[in-house]
Amino acid sequence: MAEPRSARVTVRAIAAEAGVSIATVSRVMNGHHHVASGTRALVHRAVERLGAPAPVRHGAAGGSIYVRCPYVLTDYFGVIVSSIAETLELHGRRVVLSAGDAGRRAGVLAGLPQEAGIAGAVLLLPPEPEAELETLRALNFPFVVVDPRSPLSQDIASVSAAHLTAARSVTAHLVQLGHRRIGVIGGPGDWLASQSRIAGHAAALAEAGLLPSPGLLRSVEPTADRGYEAAGELLDLPERPTALIAFNDRTAVGALRAAYERNLRVPHDLSITGFDDTDLGRSTVPRLTTVRQPLEEMGRMAVSLLMRLLERHTVDTLHVELATHLVPRESTGPAPRVRPRPRPAAASRCLDEKNDEAGP
Amino acid sequence: MAEPRSARVTVRAIAAEAGVSIATVSRVMNGHHHVASGTRALVHRAVERLGAPAPVRHGAAGGSIYVRCPYVLTDYFGVIVSSIAETLELHGRRVVLSAGDAGRRAGVLAGLPQEAGIAGAVLLLPPEPEAELETLRALNFPFVVVDPRSPLSQDIASVSAAHLTAARSVTAHLVQLGHRRIGVIGGPGDWLASQSRIAGHAAALAEAGLLPSPGLLRSVEPTADRGYEAAGELLDLPERPTALIAFNDRTAVGALRAAYERNLRVPHDLSITGFDDTDLGRSTVPRLTTVRQPLEEMGRMAVSLLMRLLERHTVDTLHVELATHLVPRESTGPAPRVRPRPRPAAASRCLDEKNDEAGP
Repeated sequence: MAEPRSARVTVRAIAAEAGVSIATVSRVMNGHHHVASGTRALVHRAVERLGAPAPVRHGAAGGSIYVRCPYVLTDYFGVIVSSIAETLELHGRRVVLSAGDAGRRAGVLAGLPQEAGIAGAVLLLPPEPEAELETLRALNFPFVVVDPRSPLSQDIASVSAAHLTAARSVTAHLVQLGHRRIGVIGGPGDWLASQSRIAGHAAALAEAGLLPSPGLLRSVEPTADRGYEAAGELLDLPERPTALIAFNDRTAVGALRAAYERNLRVPHDLSITGFDDTDLGRSTVPRLTTVRQPLEEMGRMAVSLLMRLLERHTVDTLHVELATHLVPRESTGPAPRVRPRPRPAAASRCLDEKNDEAGP
Repeated sequence: MAEPRSARVTVRAIAAEAGVSIATVSRVMNGHHHVASGTRALVHRAVERLGAPAPVRHGAAGGSIYVRCPYVLTDYFGVIVSSIAETLELHGRRVVLSAGDAGRRAGVLAGLPQEAGIAGAVLLLPPEPEAELETLRALNFPFVVVDPRSPLSQDIASVSAAHLTAARSVTAHLVQLGHRRIGVIGGPGDWLASQSRIAGHAAALAEAGLLPSPGLLRSVEPTADRGYEAAGELLDLPERPTALIAFNDRTAVGALRAAYERNLRVPHDLSITGFDDTDLGRSTVPRLTTVRQPLEEMGRMAVSLLMRLLERHTVDTLHVELATHLVPRESTGPAPRVRPRPRPAAASRCLDEKNDEAGP
């Protein structure tokens, strides 16, 4: 359970059992990411054998942590929530979960500070306007936002992936391969992640002297079904894109199917990119070029920030962005040469070139 | 939050707000599945506007529910846990979550009845031996097991999909298409779900006068990567199977890739089946023949059983199996005719036929 089984278990005992230093145990318990995974496993196994060490209890001592994810727990959110739950358990904190659509009920946040036994919260992609988060902050209730929906003020702690940088690297990769007309299957338009990705895309295009075209963007729920539909729309445009950027690997699976149905070979006729680097992307045909996101680390970092807020430690950098990296595989390749389309023969070539230069 | 915002909210008020009968609200709150999804949505929206009705509090009044899923919350477990959390929230119950590997710590269950504020539990695929569950039951602690790892005694409440029946329908479908040599990429060998699936497979083979071959079974973690590896092994056997049954849709995605790498056309040269009917299976090339599992309903049913146990209602049928159904799509087709292999020409045909008749 969430409470330590024995008050006698100390960080020192865990260190001895794991054969590592106390500092290392502390780093693992506090979710630092510069710990080798083997070392981390040693500490976790020691905690399994001995029980979690009694947490140092300052401030809101030993209360439960409210973790809210108002979405279904699949690939993305599920992995982050699992990591948050595991890390809080290591800290001897009980996790009170609200998940799925029920968590979207209005007025939930305002009541949090009065909730019996709730010491703090981790809020994943909260749907509330920023003003509500500000109010919660003003009440001195400790909480951390994972993947904020909108930019937050400096004194609200948040953790997200470096979406903008990641998206920029994806588009830069495609631009380098000669792509100029790039379709984007983005996530829901009101997610900060979606907006940051679009911004990163625009940044990379700008470096090539191009502007993004609204006509090449579709904002959808990130599922394979929606990816399939959006890709179909983009590929049926009179001027077909030579590359599609999908919001995640699932969406990319749908895009691969849409390409297949149109007899487009990936990457020969069309490049497609994913995002998240799930196991799926390694098994698609062709394997997906994608972006690795540190989902588990996002969960650990959120807990680490929250623990410091709970213990009233000074936290200098409240906005943490974790680095991602591009994983190039087989689904991206050089842009195909522009094909002549059924137009007055004389004008065709010229228009094509103009499009290529001016961008979509 | 988990607690109702106003003690004045009654089932009657919710019914009036939703424009449905009190009985319907009660059915939705109790997770019955014979409610049209539109009606269910009306009730949920009314609860969103008014707050959850104050639960009727008998017995362990208003305590939290411990939900443990000692696995990462992805497609399968994530959807079930989301549904459990949503339904418990409708009942005004707080969810205490334990997820990921940390939940596998030994001795957790024994301590549950002493945990402050915990009124009951939902345990997903518990790794403990049955004796530990029996002990918990003997302490009169109310709990429900979702997807038990081993068969449970009659007085422990459990919910699972009808794995055996589902697996039988998959194999029967393949046998009907003429397949006799069928490879199975099963889940972990110690899961009851895996064992039930194997049993269902054997049952369908038996109806065709065949016995399953241990050489055609691989037991793996159900990911795309493991599916890819296991499918590769099976397809590289000297006597290649003509069909592969994958444990879930992700595993099937891996199997599709393994087939592709061997220039096997699906379903012309090889049939492949999935399980779960996730959005993935509709976007693969070809689309997956799979089995639809009522994952959300499993969560609702588990909560419904638990609520009845908490209220000390008599529950006659403690083991609930929810029906699944086969969704035939493009990845299965008639078995290919047996190809002559490089053997002494005279013996070849005869051996093939013998294998076909005796089964793998």
